[in-house]
Amino acid sequence: MNKIYASIITIGDELLIGQVIDTNSAYIAQELNKIGILIKQRVAIADNEKNIKTALDEAFKTSNIILMTGGLGPTNDDITKQALCNYFGGKMIMHTPTLQQVTYLFEHVFKKPMIERNVQQAEVPDNCIVLKNEKGTAPALMFEKDNKICIAMPGVPYEMKWIVQHHIISIIQEKLITGFVEHRTLLTAGIGESFLAELIKEWENNLPSDIQLAYLPKYGMVRLRLSSYGFDKTQLQQNISTEFEKLKALVKEYLVTDKDLPLELVVSNLLRENNKTLATAESCTGGSIASAITANAGASDIFSGGIVSYSNYAKNKILHVPEEALNTKGAVSKETVEYMAKNCLALLHTDYAIAVSGIMGPTGATHDKPLGLVWIAVANKEKVIAKQYQFKYDRERNIQHTVITALNMLRKCIIADYQ
Amino acid sequence: MNKIYASIITIGDELLIGQVIDTNSAYIAQELNKIGILIKQRVAIADNEKNIKTALDEAFKTSNIILMTGGLGPTNDDITKQALCNYFGGKMIMHTPTLQQVTYLFEHVFKKPMIERNVQQAEVPDNCIVLKNEKGTAPALMFEKDNKICIAMPGVPYEMKWIVQHHIISIIQEKLITGFVEHRTLLTAGIGESFLAELIKEWENNLPSDIQLAYLPKYGMVRLRLSSYGFDKTQLQQNISTEFEKLKALVKEYLVTDKDLPLELVVSNLLRENNKTLATAESCTGGSIASAITANAGASDIFSGGIVSYSNYAKNKILHVPEEALNTKGAVSKETVEYMAKNCLALLHTDYAIAVSGIMGPTGATHDKPLGLVWIAVANKEKVIAKQYQFKYDRERNIQHTVITALNMLRKCIIADYQ
Repeated sequence: MNKIYASIITIGDELLIGQVIDTNSAYIAQELNKIGILIKQRVAIADNEKNIKTALDEAFKTSNIILMTGGLGPTNDDITKQALCNYFGGKMIMHTPTLQQVTYLFEHVFKKPMIERNVQQAEVPDNCIVLKNEKGTAPALMFEKDNKICIAMPGVPYEMKWIVQHHIISIIQEKLITGFVEHRTLLTAGIGESFLAELIKEWENNLPSDIQLAYLPKYGMVRLRLSSYGFDKTQLQQNISTEFEKLKALVKEYLVTDKDLPLELVVSNLLRENNKTLATAESCTGGSIASAITANAGASDIFSGGIVSYSNYAKNKILHVPEEALNTKGAVSKETVEYMAKNCLALLHTDYAIAVSGIMGPTGATHDKPLGLVWIAVANKEKVIAKQYQFKYDRERNIQHTVITALNMLRKCIIADYQ
Repeated sequence: MNKIYASIITIGDELLIGQVIDTNSAYIAQELNKIGILIKQRVAIADNEKNIKTALDEAFKTSNIILMTGGLGPTNDDITKQALCNYFGGKMIMHTPTLQQVTYLFEHVFKKPMIERNVQQAEVPDNCIVLKNEKGTAPALMFEKDNKICIAMPGVPYEMKWIVQHHIISIIQEKLITGFVEHRTLLTAGIGESFLAELIKEWENNLPSDIQLAYLPKYGMVRLRLSSYGFDKTQLQQNISTEFEKLKALVKEYLVTDKDLPLELVVSNLLRENNKTLATAESCTGGSIASAITANAGASDIFSGGIVSYSNYAKNKILHVPEEALNTKGAVSKETVEYMAKNCLALLHTDYAIAVSGIMGPTGATHDKPLGLVWIAVANKEKVIAKQYQFKYDRERNIQHTVITALNMLRKCIIADYQ
């Protein structure tokens, strides 16, 4: 039994001039990994028939499965369908079920008359299997050659995701028997990549050769991921769990979670488990903490609301930070964030409140308050804790570091209170 | 004079299992495009010497410049440096200026003792030119072969960006004489991709063959981009401007901006030009509108603050939405968003306020209020306008569509008031 390899080909000029960031590849890679498929490579190429042909030739050399996205839309720069038809030696025909789907969408969802180029979306090469796209007008197209599979999907992310979930996974599982990939991931905060590596050096050097370790640093946090591939699922899980437990013990002091979860979900889950609620008072992060918390479904269980007190007027008027504190200590000060946190807690009657105020750059620094200076406070009914941080990055990264540091302060506070 | 082509190779297992989204490639592509370099392809591969060699062989066939990111860090999974040393036939030596930079960072910035693996970061192949990385410990490495250039950079985005800005662009401009690429981009809202294509069909069919058009749809908006490549910059700009003006006239009704700007910046600029201020009252978007506005430097000129009134308690307590309206009409209703917008405007004394309330899913729908139902209101001192929308996507997309629709409503309102 051989390992199954996949290549991902994303098509579109917009990917090559950098106007669009490719999130499709990451999604496809994640989903294939879950069922034991290893990704050989990801390639992004232009809407150009010659490049598509070259990329397919290369991908067929190394991979059993080729997944493509993009270039199936109704406009003139969409040439993938015709290029594949030529590559696999077919001719275009009208596909009645697709025409019905397109017609249905125009009549009942878009509520607009169809035009000629919409009808053309129902034309497909006669040598492929058409996979229905319930989320859009362009279906996915599956070609087979030398026991290998090539599937082209539209590039619109939610259409692509639907097709992966409803067609691709089961097709691969049916057509290609695969092994298993196990990943175990933990998240650390408060320790840099090289110090983490030093801390776990001895364990890492003695890792069995079939288990790989990856360091995934992001905004002051490092995720560590163990991966292993094999055909005996039980044995695989046992081996990787043994090493994962050793790793957890080594990084205990810095461990945020031993699951592959983002920090905001770890914090939301902690609040939910302890039946506690949160409110936010944000200045420099401009709503990003509230936005991160509410990105997850069911946030209303644990999140009451927030104040984005960007101006001093808002800090004083809504959060009742005394004018005196703002004038003498300033908006970025221990006193101000403590008032923000305490008063936000009282205003929204929650169990916890986080408050942040800082100078994100590129402007706003003063003689005694440098760029990247941030005050963060966490309050509950008994106390308020405030800490000062100094970040050294650009605006976007300073904002992200502040969000993560604030959520991690809250996480530690809840754990200290309830565990 | 020939066209100059580049390939981008990103290295890291994390890109192939989809745990990290590749934003570096998009950034590099944008910056190279600005100086007239065309991207041949982008490839993501694993931390594996054989794959690096294959990708380099392929890239050297088609490209004059190869830019690589990733795998230069201090941990054991970082193998790019050694792989390049082997590929170009060198040996590793200690690089004194890099050692000084690493030592400086540990002494003055990280304020931690150096460990052996940090010292190793100062080792480089003896057959490359070392490009200083002021933002981190791993320098970039430049190799030359057959009049072609290969540069490896660290994968940490802000380090990579600094190296591109401070080294790569000038190296390319000095070493390889290039032509020019001109892009002109406009943003439309309120019309789907295929209808837009129909609207401009005749013009598109008559476009000169050296000007390319791309459709870039995202969250209910479509960007249209014209591109052209050549060596006579004045002529190029003239040709593309002529076509761009025709295009603008055709899409006038749907035009948001004729610059390559995101909607939130268009709205911020409009407010700034008219010396007006904004406040936000967000329920279902959880702070995402405020966060989008404040992501841009200088937001404090135009943004006073916002309320994330996620719970009914917050809507009533802070924004004074009457309990009766919440009980009889509901949180997602015309009445509620009108109160939210008007009272937010009054609370923060701004010129405009936006309010949103909706059901983002996957739960929360009722018999008469389906998933994706959203009410949006825009208020100024004279009036409040409320509109109902029905989105049909998942939670993340519904939130993004709501943010964009609200900002576009505000944009139209400001234009109607002041232009």
